Amino acid sequence: MTVADIARLAGVSPPTVSRVINGQAGVALDTRRRVEQVIREHGYRRPESTEPAAILELVFHALESLWALEIIRGVEQVAREHELAVVLTEMQGRLTPGRAWTEQVLARRPTGVVAVFSDLTVAQQSTLAARAIPLVVLDPTGEPLHETPSVGATNWNGGLAATRHLLELGHRRIAMICGPTVWPCCRARLDGYRAAMDAAGVPVDPDLVRVSSPLYVEGGLRDGAALLRLPDPPTAVFTANDLQAFGVYEAARQAGVRIPEDLSVVGFDDLSFTRWAGPPMTTVRQPLVQMGAAAANLVLELARGEDPRSTRVELATALVVRQSTGPPPAG
Amino acid sequence: MTVADIARLAGVSPPTVSRVINGQAGVALDTRRRVEQVIREHGYRRPESTEPAAILELVFHALESLWALEIIRGVEQVAREHELAVVLTEMQGRLTPGRAWTEQVLARRPTGVVAVFSDLTVAQQSTLAARAIPLVVLDPTGEPLHETPSVGATNWNGGLAATRHLLELGHRRIAMICGPTVWPCCRARLDGYRAAMDAAGVPVDPDLVRVSSPLYVEGGLRDGAALLRLPDPPTAVFTANDLQAFGVYEAARQAGVRIPEDLSVVGFDDLSFTRWAGPPMTTVRQPLVQMGAAAANLVLELARGEDPRSTRVELATALVVRQSTGPPPAG
Repeated sequence: MTVADIARLAGVSPPTVSRVINGQAGVALDTRRRVEQVIREHGYRRPESTEPAAILELVFHALESLWALEIIRGVEQVAREHELAVVLTEMQGRLTPGRAWTEQVLARRPTGVVAVFSDLTVAQQSTLAARAIPLVVLDPTGEPLHETPSVGATNWNGGLAATRHLLELGHRRIAMICGPTVWPCCRARLDGYRAAMDAAGVPVDPDLVRVSSPLYVEGGLRDGAALLRLPDPPTAVFTANDLQAFGVYEAARQAGVRIPEDLSVVGFDDLSFTRWAGPPMTTVRQPLVQMGAAAANLVLELARGEDPRSTRVELATALVVRQSTGPPPAG
Repeated sequence: MTVADIARLAGVSPPTVSRVINGQAGVALDTRRRVEQVIREHGYRRPESTEPAAILELVFHALESLWALEIIRGVEQVAREHELAVVLTEMQGRLTPGRAWTEQVLARRPTGVVAVFSDLTVAQQSTLAARAIPLVVLDPTGEPLHETPSVGATNWNGGLAATRHLLELGHRRIAMICGPTVWPCCRARLDGYRAAMDAAGVPVDPDLVRVSSPLYVEGGLRDGAALLRLPDPPTAVFTANDLQAFGVYEAARQAGVRIPEDLSVVGFDDLSFTRWAGPPMTTVRQPLVQMGAAAANLVLELARGEDPRSTRVELATALVVRQSTGPPPAG
């Protein structure tokens, strides 16, 4: 069925049919209904467009946490300003997209790709580069000194600030539950913790540093419980993210340990609900919306062929002190 | 620059250039690098494809809460199974998409549209219908008996179960903070509350029913504080969603009112962090991931021209009892 066929069947002119199909004004209600009726009965397949819509690809390893939503909002803000559609892909926890994803992305011919907490293979990066599709990684999980443009937060500073806060409260038995240290953002938080401990002259007890994976509540619960079972348990725990800290909350609850009277806890991210936790959580704020926006802006600069001022953007973290931290118990 | 131009400059055959551009194997590393170098220096614009990628449009009034992320995950699941790209659009709180959105959607020619907590105008619906682009609404905000296929939860049952739980604990002064009652999901929760009160023979005090907007923490805080200032304040509050319930938590904290000793609180949604709230929240679970998946499946059925068994899908809610509810204070 062509526009002319529909026009003939509906008894109207072809331009009128086009106006109805394109959702334009200036068609009487009766006429529009008649045209729509013909289309419903006989079908109509639009001719292929030659101008694809502008698309920004946003790919996540997982959509498990409010962390992801904040980043999405930042990317959406920038996309909206530039009238770009955001195609969102979840990789179900994988850090490297599969072959199907690459093929689909090439078929969609996007303006650029933002990959969150993931790493593309060298072949995937080459394929995008050969198509002149720029790539920006947010919180890359691979080699820290990689060449791919990337956006992150000042993770090392955040780890330092969190640990210094606990030291200033008088804690010495400070544990860290960190994420896999092959991930630069996790390694940097751990190194910030170590730097603060070293600067205060407090030796790090290897029993108090636990690598926990995945970065969800379950890991914090398991490793928090293990820490609380130690003969000489910590009086404070710094975790690699807020969800792990919730796991420590649960471990403390199960062990009859009170927060902050018996145990201080510091998270990382400042997801919005941490302020309503029981007790409200002390945590390190990551500006996730701004990080998403920065990644989108960087990919658009690259797409325009501009030379960005920096291919590594680090946005500042900030300690937010609430009620899950206090002095260590007397004794 | 055509493929032939690039081949000439790189000193390779055109099929080799195509293999590089398409990310296919079978090109020596040196050769690939030479081709990529030429593309970087001279540029290359792919010819327009005649086959657009399959797209599912997902449009949200706002991306403010974990509520949105769960729905996104459900839609992503179904899209992945069908190799569809999900284009995510946030309308910054508006319930009806603007003209730009409609034009962009028409240009993208998607397989279908899922609109969450929103309503398209009659003209927008007609435009999509004329293009044979099916539309499914999740939690529609307009006329309850509309014709657009839609997905929701059993909101009335949820309101009934929450209120009955409070009545069974012995509460009589039960307040409801509800959302705007022009929204069917909000109205149904309020009616479930009224039905439970009526069945128990407990008159509803109009002072205890407050319409709060928006459905965020701020509304729950403002209306929760107002309820607690009443000469005869409620002993229990049922809210239209978990974020409002967090607002009531904050109002109680500011007023020195303990939960659940002085005030019981029931939320709605069961967002994942409610279980780590202080205290863990009693709430009504909505199966949000499943609702997102159901909406996506329904739109795909319609796109295939199938006649769906039902154009209104309601998934079951369930009361989840935690520690924010208990008997009313003695006296």
